[in-house]
Amino acid sequence: MYQLKKSTENELYKVQSAIKNELATEKIIKDIYEYIFNKEGKKTRALICLLASKSVDIKPSFRVDLASIIELLHTATLVHDDVVDESELRRGAKSVNQVWTNSYSVLMGDFIYSKAFILMVKLGIPSILDELAKATNDIAKGEIIQLELFERKQFAKLKDLIKVSYLKTGRLFEASAKTGAMLAKRSEKEIKTFGSLGKAIGIAFQIQDDILDYETVAVNTGKPSMKDFQEGKITFPLYFALQNSSKKDKKFILENLGKRNLSLKNQNKIYNLIHSTKTQQNINNLLNEYLKEAQNHLNNLKNHPCHSEMLNLLKFSKIRKK
Amino acid sequence: MYQLKKSTENELYKVQSAIKNELATEKIIKDIYEYIFNKEGKKTRALICLLASKSVDIKPSFRVDLASIIELLHTATLVHDDVVDESELRRGAKSVNQVWTNSYSVLMGDFIYSKAFILMVKLGIPSILDELAKATNDIAKGEIIQLELFERKQFAKLKDLIKVSYLKTGRLFEASAKTGAMLAKRSEKEIKTFGSLGKAIGIAFQIQDDILDYETVAVNTGKPSMKDFQEGKITFPLYFALQNSSKKDKKFILENLGKRNLSLKNQNKIYNLIHSTKTQQNINNLLNEYLKEAQNHLNNLKNHPCHSEMLNLLKFSKIRKK
Repeated sequence: MYQLKKSTENELYKVQSAIKNELATEKIIKDIYEYIFNKEGKKTRALICLLASKSVDIKPSFRVDLASIIELLHTATLVHDDVVDESELRRGAKSVNQVWTNSYSVLMGDFIYSKAFILMVKLGIPSILDELAKATNDIAKGEIIQLELFERKQFAKLKDLIKVSYLKTGRLFEASAKTGAMLAKRSEKEIKTFGSLGKAIGIAFQIQDDILDYETVAVNTGKPSMKDFQEGKITFPLYFALQNSSKKDKKFILENLGKRNLSLKNQNKIYNLIHSTKTQQNINNLLNEYLKEAQNHLNNLKNHPCHSEMLNLLKFSKIRKK
Repeated sequence: MYQLKKSTENELYKVQSAIKNELATEKIIKDIYEYIFNKEGKKTRALICLLASKSVDIKPSFRVDLASIIELLHTATLVHDDVVDESELRRGAKSVNQVWTNSYSVLMGDFIYSKAFILMVKLGIPSILDELAKATNDIAKGEIIQLELFERKQFAKLKDLIKVSYLKTGRLFEASAKTGAMLAKRSEKEIKTFGSLGKAIGIAFQIQDDILDYETVAVNTGKPSMKDFQEGKITFPLYFALQNSSKKDKKFILENLGKRNLSLKNQNKIYNLIHSTKTQQNINNLLNEYLKEAQNHLNNLKNHPCHSEMLNLLKFSKIRKK
């Protein structure tokens, strides 16, 4: 997937082990916890943190600890998201709310969040605690704003969609990069650069996620295709499709938005509207804008030990299929 | 309600103001946040923290800050509990999941949790952060264990019920008293005593809550009466009733446990089984056991400025009707 140095791959592997070691003694909690973490995600946030924290002055185990905390925080948001979205699948397998119930998902999310905070306190760096507590708060904020945006079924403005993408996704990417640099005791200026880099990658990541949701083969993402559409979400591709559609097609989209069992015919029609030349141009331009911004920030980190790997991550962000 | 000094009452009032000041700029979040905190609870945990932190050496505003953090943590658990229990009422008004939806409750709970962590980091005392992160984790743990206990509909053992009561309720009481004493820079020994005192009060509080759930007048508690029973929960009174019932009555109880619309006749029958002399004796003995334990710990704090008020709180715990 990502082109990484062997040492980084090894560290990413250690993140997974560190997380799995955080077991509870109670069987039911252990069972759900193992179920959640047996399905491995891409760990992009943990990876960014590992890259940003590279430094000869820092004990590698601290870097793995911080990356694990970030992966735990991210996973807690996913477990709660599955309740909010009534998702049936996560990482290609049944989500917790399907195997157990929504109640278990709510409480396991809380369990994982607070586990992450316990480990943060143990790490003992106030600026990192502050950044991650604020990021967690912003993620919840972003999800609530998104919920209201979709429920009102109003025409969301592009700036609202960008704000939501920043809060719910970009914010934790930003915090991952920033806290990584903080751990490595980088200068204020470099910490800021890492923050901006993380933020831009995160928003690009969300745009790519939104694009992939409209690609047909469900097996690719482990998610049902057009999941966002069927959940009533106006994401970036649909936003542009609405902008570029005739009055009649616009009406068709809004009438079908949020319907869970779309006919194949209607699904094809939506697919075609999303894949119009103009809409694809718009969405690719937006994606490239954030990738370019990320590239600009990365140019200021030419001498940082993460530079080549971060560059690979950027390149991969554009072509990833899951 | 509680017999408090004017100065303590004033501080408790300041807790409410401090919480209300933590507003978000986004309208939807502000609306839900205000809705939640306009309905005032008893703030028993915040009060215990204010009492335990009394000291001439500590700035009163720090004590209010800590008490507010604890009240926020508690409220976040309530918002999530309402999803888990599918509750319709909270503090006498419609719960968030009723006015908005479960999704909003999940995310607002996360918002309030992380807000509490932001304020904790700002307070900047590592031992307090550690204790509160661990308490939050234990609360989730207790709720999950409870969920499984009730879903298996098995005969819970008394020790399981006590463990759950400790984790889901006693644990935050314990943390409130302990962190209060930590803030006031008390000795290790005194911090430990406050922890044990809080824990005992907390478990007694939960027992009294379980008792009150079987008292008929719903207006008293702001909760539907026999709510626990209708949610399928075997709490302390029902545990003893099951122990003391004939085989036939036991069967009757288990057949009706978890039914949402009990007939008046069946409700009366359950009421009578709970109110048998033996069961009432059992439950009162259990309550008195924890109140006595609390009293013993309080006896070691005779010279602490909170002594008389804590004693009033203990006395009130036994007779409170809501």
